[in-house]
Amino acid sequence: MTETRSIVELAKAAREASRKLALASTEVKNSALQAIADALIEEQAAILEANQQDCKEVAELVAKAEMAKPLLDRLKLDAAKLGTMAESVRAVASLDDPVGQTISRTLLDDGLELQKVTCPLGVLAIIFESRPDAVTQISALALKSGNAALLKGGREAARSNQVLLETIWKAIRNFPELTEDALILLTEREQINSLLSLDNLIDLVIPRGSNELVRYIQSNTKIPVLGHAEGLCHIYIDESARLDMALDIVCDAKLQYPAACNAVETILVHSKIAPLFLPELFERLTSQGVELRCCERTKALLDKPDILLATEQDWQTEYCGLIVSIKIVDAVSQAIDHINLYGSGHTDSIITEDRKNAESFLNRVDSAGVYHNASTRFADGFRYGFGAEVGISTNKIHARGPVGLDGLLSYKYKLYGCGQTVSNYSGSQARPFKHKKLV
Amino acid sequence: MTETRSIVELAKAAREASRKLALASTEVKNSALQAIADALIEEQAAILEANQQDCKEVAELVAKAEMAKPLLDRLKLDAAKLGTMAESVRAVASLDDPVGQTISRTLLDDGLELQKVTCPLGVLAIIFESRPDAVTQISALALKSGNAALLKGGREAARSNQVLLETIWKAIRNFPELTEDALILLTEREQINSLLSLDNLIDLVIPRGSNELVRYIQSNTKIPVLGHAEGLCHIYIDESARLDMALDIVCDAKLQYPAACNAVETILVHSKIAPLFLPELFERLTSQGVELRCCERTKALLDKPDILLATEQDWQTEYCGLIVSIKIVDAVSQAIDHINLYGSGHTDSIITEDRKNAESFLNRVDSAGVYHNASTRFADGFRYGFGAEVGISTNKIHARGPVGLDGLLSYKYKLYGCGQTVSNYSGSQARPFKHKKLV
Repeated sequence: MTETRSIVELAKAAREASRKLALASTEVKNSALQAIADALIEEQAAILEANQQDCKEVAELVAKAEMAKPLLDRLKLDAAKLGTMAESVRAVASLDDPVGQTISRTLLDDGLELQKVTCPLGVLAIIFESRPDAVTQISALALKSGNAALLKGGREAARSNQVLLETIWKAIRNFPELTEDALILLTEREQINSLLSLDNLIDLVIPRGSNELVRYIQSNTKIPVLGHAEGLCHIYIDESARLDMALDIVCDAKLQYPAACNAVETILVHSKIAPLFLPELFERLTSQGVELRCCERTKALLDKPDILLATEQDWQTEYCGLIVSIKIVDAVSQAIDHINLYGSGHTDSIITEDRKNAESFLNRVDSAGVYHNASTRFADGFRYGFGAEVGISTNKIHARGPVGLDGLLSYKYKLYGCGQTVSNYSGSQARPFKHKKLV
Repeated sequence: MTETRSIVELAKAAREASRKLALASTEVKNSALQAIADALIEEQAAILEANQQDCKEVAELVAKAEMAKPLLDRLKLDAAKLGTMAESVRAVASLDDPVGQTISRTLLDDGLELQKVTCPLGVLAIIFESRPDAVTQISALALKSGNAALLKGGREAARSNQVLLETIWKAIRNFPELTEDALILLTEREQINSLLSLDNLIDLVIPRGSNELVRYIQSNTKIPVLGHAEGLCHIYIDESARLDMALDIVCDAKLQYPAACNAVETILVHSKIAPLFLPELFERLTSQGVELRCCERTKALLDKPDILLATEQDWQTEYCGLIVSIKIVDAVSQAIDHINLYGSGHTDSIITEDRKNAESFLNRVDSAGVYHNASTRFADGFRYGFGAEVGISTNKIHARGPVGLDGLLSYKYKLYGCGQTVSNYSGSQARPFKHKKLV
């Protein structure tokens, strides 16, 4: 089926669908999610076949060096992966319904009650690259939170994305609250800019992909963007740090998954502990193939002729790989200043046995996550216990840090009266408000 | 003192000041607010003299019809008004400190605790017109919430704003956490566009002024904007409405303060109740000088030859005065569709004795405030019990509806560990998380 509607028509259709979806009961949404999970297994043959065609084309481009190999790995589906995708959808079904939750209730006056209640945002635009598993995960999160979504996938995964969405559409067809327009697939790259211009029809953009993609989207839309272009995380090893703990945490944060946004990029070391700590760190990291870029003092201390000097650019770089920059500082305040100047506001950690320094660091570092004696790699919606992760935000507006389903929600105020007018609460004879908190 | 720093330098100075201010204790902030209130009274002579000069210049422009008379009224200060301004500052001092509140605590595992804690946004830009009382109110809200602020006032109030801020600076000089750069005054109109371009230095823009000002700002910045350009509020009179209640509420919502953003602009009336309701409404409104713009059916029913027919434009217009548009509908769903199509998402009310229709309206109307049997004029931070109002937002991201001090806050995640690494929680031997909610 070829989509002939314009982007504006599609966004309006999604808005219309979102109004029905917002009213869907928890039972309907969860049944639909289970039906989607079932359908992913039932349609396995068709899904894998479409995916193989995508993979074949990409493999040819990889062979011609026109595409990078990792893209092929991300694209490829098999029965096991499809099983995991179905399980992820069931996991979303098992989460509490975030819609319609009462945040607070206030008795403004007798017979006049104000309720603050969660509701869906409306229409999401999700722009992602290569991974077809993003389609099922995002669709599940959108449906559960009562939001319609426009999904813009990569062209290289066009057939996989199409068959996955067709599978989803078929599965939800029996639920009148969930129309097909609740999940709309866009495939053309040219559609991104049109999409980003629809700030009156789309409530939130969620980019999933490279830093370049995120930065492009942030720079080219007035719609709020949930995400982060950079994860430039720091670990500061304070004077009183336990050396073994500091080494374990730094190695975990750099090596456990170096390409992750919450991997560490810069190590700041107090000058008093540097002579003990840095030689050991050098051994641990270089033995694992990590390249070091060091400040003058670190280089002098390590006294290895082939260590690279860090440039100003290094303090601003998320390496996404086996490189780390190292700098010696003389006080926790210097570490804090460095992080607030160069960091991306993602996640930063202090390793110290000094509680005062820890509190100072946690209060003064202006990041979504501020940690004491823990690896920056904990910055993750699942590890935080959210059950699902929509993304990690370095914005301070709306959601910050790892964002669960509640990042896809807004709220509205419901006021229940029995004929009240403001005139009665104004002027010299004004009736006073009670403003009694009920919840 | 003439400010010679560039906008970027000023914004950086505000950012620097915000980092100190964010750490100020509740006691320091409240003492500073009391000192400001005292200083407003002590400096009364100087403040009123500067204000008289502003007023004199504006009066000359009004006489030449180069400025509107209401602007002069908003600009003018006297001893009584200054007293009220000082009291408003003391009222902000008496509010709970919104900074450093623990939103939730989760035990991820033994010895690994995650805390979600409120913190200031950082730097606010507040753009306002004429009213010098905005300076003291905004300064008080910014200080209390730990945010620095760049204040751009109208040129016509330049002297008043300057002397008010000098009074504030003098009052906070004794508090080292509160540097003068925490509140920076901008006076040149040309500075607005520079200000709006600083999305890496400013966290939130709050416009206070005409719809045109708000719309201009929303269209010309990538910084999040807290506010609303339009308040196009509706009241729907359902089939089962009590007539006296409906009349009182409509008159309150139109007449109690017609220029307010939460005043009603369009009345939707169920066709079954229209023959009883509309003639009475016509009498009540026209006797108060309200002009009616009616749909064909309303005009036919009222049978008054000089009633204007509403145009498509009328359904999209916030009159801000003594005009109202009226339309007959045949069902609650038609009223809902009209509101979702033409409304501004501000505040809409249903008058009905039918609870099912009320719930349907409250759930399906996509507005910040959805009311049952109450005047739209209740949409206000003070009436909601927030103690202060930062603005009313029609965004769904971040704060929605009337916004109190908490609209000036973000949060951060503090993670307290004792050496934990993610490696231990990964792979086939993964240690499970506990994810136990503590608060």
